[in-house]
Amino acid sequence: MFNDFKLMDDRPVYIQVKDYLKRLIIKGALQANQRLPSTRELGMLLNVSRNTVISAYAELQEDGFAYTAQGKGSYVAAGSSSVTAPSSWQMDWKTRLNGHARLAEELDLMKRGIRADKGTISFTSIAPDEKLFDLDNFKRAFLDRMSVEGDVLLNYGYAKGYKPLIDYLLRYMDHKGVDLKGKDILITNGFTEGFDIVLSALSKKNGTVICENPTHHTAIKNLKLHGFDITGIPMERDGINLRELERALSEQAYDCAYFVPSYHNPTGIVMSPEKRIELMKLMTRHQIPVIEDGFNEELRYSGSHVSPLMATAGQGNGVIYLGSFSKVLFPGLRVGWVLADRELIYYLESIKRARTIHTSTIDQSILYQYLHNGNLEKYLKKARAEYKRKYEWTLQCCKEYIPYTQLSGDGGLHLFVAFGEGFHTRELLDACSRQGVIFTPGDIFFTDGKGQHTMRLGFSRVSDENISKGIRIIGETAKQLMG
Amino acid sequence: MFNDFKLMDDRPVYIQVKDYLKRLIIKGALQANQRLPSTRELGMLLNVSRNTVISAYAELQEDGFAYTAQGKGSYVAAGSSSVTAPSSWQMDWKTRLNGHARLAEELDLMKRGIRADKGTISFTSIAPDEKLFDLDNFKRAFLDRMSVEGDVLLNYGYAKGYKPLIDYLLRYMDHKGVDLKGKDILITNGFTEGFDIVLSALSKKNGTVICENPTHHTAIKNLKLHGFDITGIPMERDGINLRELERALSEQAYDCAYFVPSYHNPTGIVMSPEKRIELMKLMTRHQIPVIEDGFNEELRYSGSHVSPLMATAGQGNGVIYLGSFSKVLFPGLRVGWVLADRELIYYLESIKRARTIHTSTIDQSILYQYLHNGNLEKYLKKARAEYKRKYEWTLQCCKEYIPYTQLSGDGGLHLFVAFGEGFHTRELLDACSRQGVIFTPGDIFFTDGKGQHTMRLGFSRVSDENISKGIRIIGETAKQLMG
Repeated sequence: MFNDFKLMDDRPVYIQVKDYLKRLIIKGALQANQRLPSTRELGMLLNVSRNTVISAYAELQEDGFAYTAQGKGSYVAAGSSSVTAPSSWQMDWKTRLNGHARLAEELDLMKRGIRADKGTISFTSIAPDEKLFDLDNFKRAFLDRMSVEGDVLLNYGYAKGYKPLIDYLLRYMDHKGVDLKGKDILITNGFTEGFDIVLSALSKKNGTVICENPTHHTAIKNLKLHGFDITGIPMERDGINLRELERALSEQAYDCAYFVPSYHNPTGIVMSPEKRIELMKLMTRHQIPVIEDGFNEELRYSGSHVSPLMATAGQGNGVIYLGSFSKVLFPGLRVGWVLADRELIYYLESIKRARTIHTSTIDQSILYQYLHNGNLEKYLKKARAEYKRKYEWTLQCCKEYIPYTQLSGDGGLHLFVAFGEGFHTRELLDACSRQGVIFTPGDIFFTDGKGQHTMRLGFSRVSDENISKGIRIIGETAKQLMG
Repeated sequence: MFNDFKLMDDRPVYIQVKDYLKRLIIKGALQANQRLPSTRELGMLLNVSRNTVISAYAELQEDGFAYTAQGKGSYVAAGSSSVTAPSSWQMDWKTRLNGHARLAEELDLMKRGIRADKGTISFTSIAPDEKLFDLDNFKRAFLDRMSVEGDVLLNYGYAKGYKPLIDYLLRYMDHKGVDLKGKDILITNGFTEGFDIVLSALSKKNGTVICENPTHHTAIKNLKLHGFDITGIPMERDGINLRELERALSEQAYDCAYFVPSYHNPTGIVMSPEKRIELMKLMTRHQIPVIEDGFNEELRYSGSHVSPLMATAGQGNGVIYLGSFSKVLFPGLRVGWVLADRELIYYLESIKRARTIHTSTIDQSILYQYLHNGNLEKYLKKARAEYKRKYEWTLQCCKEYIPYTQLSGDGGLHLFVAFGEGFHTRELLDACSRQGVIFTPGDIFFTDGKGQHTMRLGFSRVSDENISKGIRIIGETAKQLMG
């Protein structure tokens, strides 16, 4: 005994000794009421200082694994070894899971995605480029906030969110032209939780939702998980096809609509101001609640500012706006917001509380302080300049190398490419991945199983050199496949 | 125009000027292609420096709200004012909500709870005492981690969780005597998300769950929200009544069980090691998956260590352990974990990804570094000493002042008091709150609408002086009510 002790890592030694002894006790190697070696003795056996053992024994006692008998030394406490129930039953968990769990796994693209080995040129990500993060301002924001109200930040917060952040975001949305009268904000763990909570609250009278086709694949996944039938409306150069939309609306009723008006995922298209107004008129006429995905609104590289649908709706309360800085600032901070009618938010708040109590106060307060310190403006200037450069470079490479029939993307962190009907980008992907280049096949964004001839190219985290190299390989391979 | 500009806060002035102009443009006060005042002119009008205006104009252009005509100055960009759709439709959201949303609101105790005015002595909280938080080690942990991999922490992480934290927690559970073979961990936004995700995954063949009565009210809420019928089994001094449990199990089938074996909420009872073994034998015989709530396991003040049910189950895979440090360390960090059979975790991971993508990496990495630095041991020593003192003081005050028939609480941050049947603690609460003292009426913890004669006293955030003062008032008022 005591001959298999190893210092495993850089944690304090006395803790490692305590943990080692705990294990011996729990596994029954040291029995209840058995005398432990003297501190000097064990120190020599484990080759650690006597004081270390003294501290370790004190900790053991503290944790209820040992007791001292006056002048007789330390003993193993009774009942502290883990007596296990005789039979150790193996359950087949598959038989205990419901359809929801199985569907969630089935629709989990991260478990189906192509793994990128080291050195692979990957156009699959549309996450921000870490090199742009200004860590110093981030640390500053953390320390600023901690010094103001550190202890408060570390205790329970409110389901609705961190008040200073809510107030900041209300002003932020006001500056986007949103009429805030009768509206309120709920802070969520990013866009995804906001979307999930909203879908959990909406009645499914018809079980139907209408949206752009193609659209954000996470949205498709969550709509399916909530049991919605999805009707997708084709895209035009300036946004959703209104005639098609009107036709669909005349044919059946919809419980809600989901739109990504700016830098639409995956096509990167920005819906024109005129179209936004027409769209909102249609939704109003058919009385359909609109879920607006504020995705990438900040990543505008050219053209003039476009107001969100919620601003277009004026005093109307039919739009639920889902906001997030994840694609602009720091995705690691899981903070997003739902801006909607106050009465609706009141109910969403209760669902949020039942789901996660509240969003990390640390995340919320750092984000608030970071914004409050005026860092967003500085950061956006830097990020936009860099992404704009990459965006134009990627555009140029696509035009030079790829035999596409359609190419779209007005900004943001990705471009969308369509080949002729009949061309299969998954075959292209197989051929390219063998040459160390991967991208996202477009079919996952389609609501009707179509889009086999499309693909999304995310460029935010690919170097200029790899952008041209990768796109050349994709283009040449595509030409070969076309024969 | 320009006469209603006020410096509102301490954000950079040029940003406030930009936001002010944005508003004028969006509200249509400044029209498309209208010429903006010269920088000198506006500087005087707003009483800010010319350079401030220059920066503001540059930002406006950057954001697409303005453009410059060579040598002619700045102009408002076209289409940037928010044209709103004529009709502004008011929807009645109540008619668009489903039963889940209404039930979540109805069961939301935070919306029903008694508000504590300033100066009220409140025994309702069982959150940790902020004064005990060691902010310096917390900041240190943040800075340590940021310096190691700051940029990585701020980008997207993994649904399963932050690897170093997962590894730490696996070792942590191993030291509690859990057999980790075939098991895995999913990191969640605290206990609540873990519980919610598990309930979303389990099949509801019978739609029934069995648990202790009383039990954790959040658990009752979420079980109801997931449509479970709850069977509560009465408590004894050393934990759940096994005879009652056995009888109930023989009468009908259950989809799962939920237990709080240590410092049970609300009774504060620790289930004896013998009972844990008998309990697991019963669950194994009836093949019922067990959800174990590791609540407050660390807040042991006396007696020897007791292994979790999951350790008692040995190599069995029937226990799902939900862990959290929220009651011990920092609730503001929304981090908990689900330790369970690896195949089950594989499915839970997909649900987690669909709900919140992943838990805040900042929270996870700070917690990891804090633990890794060996702070938990130091903190627990300090916290236990302080809470133990308060625990004993509260116990003494209850014995001195309160005419209870039963008093329980083996540790943790609260005591549970039962008066004679027929006594109503809500009447007591009304009478006490008029004297500035509040507590949690016990009925909210009962699965069968009973417990009107019980109450929970949380002492973690009440000063010694207020503990005795408050409990004396409760006791005297109770005696009066008893007549």
